[in-house]
Amino acid sequence: MEQLFNPQSIAIIGASKTAGKVGYEVLHNLVKGGFEGPIIPVNQAGGELLGLKVYRDILSYPDPIDVAVITVPAEQVADAARAAVGKKVQGVVVVASGFKESGNMGRALEEELIAICRKGKIRLLGPNCLGLINTEIKLNASFSKRIPKPGAMAIFSQSGALCTAMMDLADSRELGLSKSISIGNKADITEVDVLEALARDDKTKVIVGYLEDISDGDRFVKAAEDASTNKPVVILKSGTTVAGIRAAALHTGVLGGKRDTAYGAAFRRAGICRADSFEALFDYSTALAMQPPPKGNRVFVISNAGGPGTIAADAIEKAGLVVCEMSSETKTAVQHILPFATKVNNPMDVSGEATPEHFGALLEAAQDDDSIDAVLIILAPQYLDEPAETARAIAGKLNFTKPVLASFLGGDDVMPSRRELAAARLPFYASPERAVATIRAMYDYGEWKRRPARHVIRFPVNRRRVERIISRRQRTGRLQIGEVKSKDILKAYGFRILDGRMTVSPEQAVEIARFIGFPVAMKIVSPSIVHKSDLGGVRLNVGSSQEVADAFELMMLRIRKHAPEAKIDGIYVEKMAEKGLEVIIGMTRDPQFGPMLMFGLGGIFVEVMKDVAFHLAPITEDEAIQMLSSTRSYELLKGKRGLKKVDVGALAVALQRISQLATDFPQIAELDINPLIVGEPGTEPVVADARMSFVKPEKDLRAGS
Amino acid sequence: MEQLFNPQSIAIIGASKTAGKVGYEVLHNLVKGGFEGPIIPVNQAGGELLGLKVYRDILSYPDPIDVAVITVPAEQVADAARAAVGKKVQGVVVVASGFKESGNMGRALEEELIAICRKGKIRLLGPNCLGLINTEIKLNASFSKRIPKPGAMAIFSQSGALCTAMMDLADSRELGLSKSISIGNKADITEVDVLEALARDDKTKVIVGYLEDISDGDRFVKAAEDASTNKPVVILKSGTTVAGIRAAALHTGVLGGKRDTAYGAAFRRAGICRADSFEALFDYSTALAMQPPPKGNRVFVISNAGGPGTIAADAIEKAGLVVCEMSSETKTAVQHILPFATKVNNPMDVSGEATPEHFGALLEAAQDDDSIDAVLIILAPQYLDEPAETARAIAGKLNFTKPVLASFLGGDDVMPSRRELAAARLPFYASPERAVATIRAMYDYGEWKRRPARHVIRFPVNRRRVERIISRRQRTGRLQIGEVKSKDILKAYGFRILDGRMTVSPEQAVEIARFIGFPVAMKIVSPSIVHKSDLGGVRLNVGSSQEVADAFELMMLRIRKHAPEAKIDGIYVEKMAEKGLEVIIGMTRDPQFGPMLMFGLGGIFVEVMKDVAFHLAPITEDEAIQMLSSTRSYELLKGKRGLKKVDVGALAVALQRISQLATDFPQIAELDINPLIVGEPGTEPVVADARMSFVKPEKDLRAGS
Repeated sequence: MEQLFNPQSIAIIGASKTAGKVGYEVLHNLVKGGFEGPIIPVNQAGGELLGLKVYRDILSYPDPIDVAVITVPAEQVADAARAAVGKKVQGVVVVASGFKESGNMGRALEEELIAICRKGKIRLLGPNCLGLINTEIKLNASFSKRIPKPGAMAIFSQSGALCTAMMDLADSRELGLSKSISIGNKADITEVDVLEALARDDKTKVIVGYLEDISDGDRFVKAAEDASTNKPVVILKSGTTVAGIRAAALHTGVLGGKRDTAYGAAFRRAGICRADSFEALFDYSTALAMQPPPKGNRVFVISNAGGPGTIAADAIEKAGLVVCEMSSETKTAVQHILPFATKVNNPMDVSGEATPEHFGALLEAAQDDDSIDAVLIILAPQYLDEPAETARAIAGKLNFTKPVLASFLGGDDVMPSRRELAAARLPFYASPERAVATIRAMYDYGEWKRRPARHVIRFPVNRRRVERIISRRQRTGRLQIGEVKSKDILKAYGFRILDGRMTVSPEQAVEIARFIGFPVAMKIVSPSIVHKSDLGGVRLNVGSSQEVADAFELMMLRIRKHAPEAKIDGIYVEKMAEKGLEVIIGMTRDPQFGPMLMFGLGGIFVEVMKDVAFHLAPITEDEAIQMLSSTRSYELLKGKRGLKKVDVGALAVALQRISQLATDFPQIAELDINPLIVGEPGTEPVVADARMSFVKPEKDLRAGS
Repeated sequence: MEQLFNPQSIAIIGASKTAGKVGYEVLHNLVKGGFEGPIIPVNQAGGELLGLKVYRDILSYPDPIDVAVITVPAEQVADAARAAVGKKVQGVVVVASGFKESGNMGRALEEELIAICRKGKIRLLGPNCLGLINTEIKLNASFSKRIPKPGAMAIFSQSGALCTAMMDLADSRELGLSKSISIGNKADITEVDVLEALARDDKTKVIVGYLEDISDGDRFVKAAEDASTNKPVVILKSGTTVAGIRAAALHTGVLGGKRDTAYGAAFRRAGICRADSFEALFDYSTALAMQPPPKGNRVFVISNAGGPGTIAADAIEKAGLVVCEMSSETKTAVQHILPFATKVNNPMDVSGEATPEHFGALLEAAQDDDSIDAVLIILAPQYLDEPAETARAIAGKLNFTKPVLASFLGGDDVMPSRRELAAARLPFYASPERAVATIRAMYDYGEWKRRPARHVIRFPVNRRRVERIISRRQRTGRLQIGEVKSKDILKAYGFRILDGRMTVSPEQAVEIARFIGFPVAMKIVSPSIVHKSDLGGVRLNVGSSQEVADAFELMMLRIRKHAPEAKIDGIYVEKMAEKGLEVIIGMTRDPQFGPMLMFGLGGIFVEVMKDVAFHLAPITEDEAIQMLSSTRSYELLKGKRGLKKVDVGALAVALQRISQLATDFPQIAELDINPLIVGEPGTEPVVADARMSFVKPEKDLRAGS
């Protein structure tokens, strides 16, 4: 990878003399960009191009070549790649489209290309990509017109257009880039390789990415987490809605977009700053490239006008940040700096009378104040203002101990030169709201960096027992299991299960009920019935022998009427659970990111209010508590509206046990405890009902092929 | 008002020869702006200024003067205003700050100024304002450096800085303005006057406003509704959070910010396009000034790159709009236009191969397609692109039958001249997301315009009965009423109340219970106890005489223990309500906007999930249904999770009856039916409990002063 990004020599297979053709433009960009190593144009026609000798064949070039950019059309790419392999290059960049994204024929071409590179042990960037830029070595191996100037941001993108748009934006702000990597169809090199490489790259201070799908969820999370530990990773992930997934599938040929919840959970785990719009991607990455994340959520606003200050205060509160109190020292300092100010407050309205020096002095005071974590300076165009001087005064006082962002309202001419702002590392925003959203993103990143070390608790469990149940089921192909077996598994993992037994006759049911004590719950056990209660297959609070006998016969009668085909194993008689709060705990195995835990309050809260939290397993105790408290209905767990306070800690333990179970057994595809009944502090939650399903064992898949 | 905006002649009281002083800058702006009527500088010093004779006194000018701009400091404003009154001007503009916003002394100065203007029967704009611009007559009576060019947008703002920022933005987009009105402290002329005037102003096609508080809610809603009927009104209202309200209070001296829900309800009623950020204010108003609102929610995306198309599709779905199917004719047309396109779809990825002509032809096809309501064209910078030509080709095909918006990604140089785009009325956005948010705002405005005529149903009620209860209470000063009296009032307005009677002894309670039939509910009646059930003051499902007698004594005993001070009137014995869904219907009288109705599902849904809908009274049947269906828990009303479907129509009627009650009796300050028990279709909801409070009668207030 590193060699692909840092070649000593580079060939362009398909170099062309016709301006406008990719084979010309890439060569032209390489030459114009000022790459200092050998540039080797390759074309059967031979001759000379842009002052360089054109080789008819890559093999005829006498010295080694590190990277070959292949600019020929899709059909000719395989031959070019074979030649590159023959020349023993380290990697190839394939620009052409017409591969996987264009249908079955293209897909076949891509498979062939992948096979050639894999066999030849060379790395492949693309196809269907813009190319590669490394400003450090003045390498512009792309068909992007301009080479950006060197800088702190590295961009990678699944869409060439987004890559160019970001470079264009950066350029218009006089911001530099370290690398720009268009990953295109990701036939070999994916976001994971790029994250790994950029994490190690000293020139890159912030990694900025655009993704539509993720190739390997587990490796992605790992790579992104490692990268985030070193430097901020800001990603815009599109294809998060049904319409977006469809659109992404149309143009990249991947059906990669998964439910957004899984991405949300994965991004949170990995510490990724998630941008929810194209502008946010640029906003967040610029600030993170220039300034440190804040140590807390307390924001101080300095504004030369009241209105924008009010807008900022609204935005800060809505973002979950705090319009903070300044310390009494700062108050005194402000009074001293602005003797004409009638009120000393946050937002600090300095009025039109404030000079650039006033702004500078105020910023100094705010930077010295430990009760302020971030500073937002707003400049609205006012009569007699000197916005450029003010910005300069601010920039001159920046000490980078806490983030300082500026918002310049109005047209572009209120601003000093962008070059100057970029050089001073003062990020600026066209509105207070965007600056505040950026502070929030920086704060989240800071919080992630400050997170406690992750210690996943491992509870003592009976793993063997679960292994036996699962392998038997996988052997027999009965991949759905119902309440009874699910409870067996959960019991082995430390869950509290009530006394109960399967019964096949009214008499046996009565006997069992007497043994475990009244009242009891009675439930139909049938592999073919999933929603027991919808079919009258559940009776609660059955209080006497007579009632148990009656219920048994009635349930059997009714279930045979409603579901005559159903195979009935019997009726499960169980001790009736104490009253408590009903919650749902679940796990689904995401095809990208693996086991994802789910929590929500029973019934209506999950189904109607969609008040659900998700988290990737394995989960730590802290994360489990956070997961619980991220639901709106968390208030109810703490006791409210006549409900008793429940044992939140025990609920967190339940989540961790499920996490352990899901991690221990990749065979479990889905799992649902619905409901888990949680009681007062000091009590153990009870599994009232549960279901699971298993994945088809691998050998079945092989047998089927 | 119209005369204030269209003066024939204008005086500047306090005209100054010192550049940088407001008295100089306003005069300079007037002269430079090219105002064609007489400009009369007034200053005791006399002499000449910018080629104009300076009058020592406004009275010494021989001809009539329509408007005087007062540019002297706050302390001298009263004298200047008196002189203006003496000269019989129509209105004055007071620029100086140092009035209400600066504390008690300023407040007194403002009161004096208001009194002078009121007595002199002249209108007053300001104080603490930027001034007034009317491009039609080249009037720049402000201290804003530039006079915008004439155009379709009128701006009014409570913050001078926001006014300038908007003008600046408009200018940088080469957009014109009709008027710019800085309303400052709104001592006389408020947003209501401005809305009324701009609604009538032919030069204004869109009204754009920034507000921090609203002076008179009722008049505002009326004026905004009238204005919206003629032309779009786009408003950014800040001070919507606790921090924002505090900030607004600091700099405008008003504690105007009310709970955001009231503003939300008022804005919806009035058809205002509410911008939720500074950028949205500009985004929405630009599009509405240039293009018609869409007839429906179906958006077609044309993009020259896949990535931004995917981002747009995500944004459209998230905004509640539809990534639509094009008609089969359009599909054929597109295949014909783009023979090289492998897929014909929405988003339509035209690829880098598309020429400007292709874009133009596609737009024509999309404009002709009745299954498309709005078109979004995305241009990302690509190799070989001609963004300027493409934009020109698009602009050339616009027929304004449906909105067409463009999104240009990347730096500014990807764009054609802004002048050209403005002249072609093609609004453009820096990101697909902002363009989509704008289409949504336009769609909402279109929906509002298409709303059915509002027919408020008036039910036959016993108004006299309610009048008697309220006036008695207001006389005695007992302004809170409990369940029994509240039910009397609700019964008079057609609500179903169950049989019940007040009782003062166990014997009487038993007698009543027997009369109305078991089971009964028993509730403490006490003017001093608000939360009856918290104190054990409610017993439900009391099933026999013995239980009634026991409950009576126990409740009395307990309540005396818990609340020994409470005056107990007795115990209300009532027929037990049938089971049903518990909902809350309420009304609070907003100080700005009057009676505001509230609806939510009982208990947890309102208090924990905040799943509540608000609407201003009077409400129509349609609006009541909409209000119900705007809650997330609406699904439950339709039957879900074992709950029975309830009579939604009857619930809508209940809302309308409350609306009528609240409109008929401004004396009712607050009202709460909690719960209202709603049953299956065909049944009438039952008021299970209710409370009300009344406003202090006017005469009490007078007596107190």
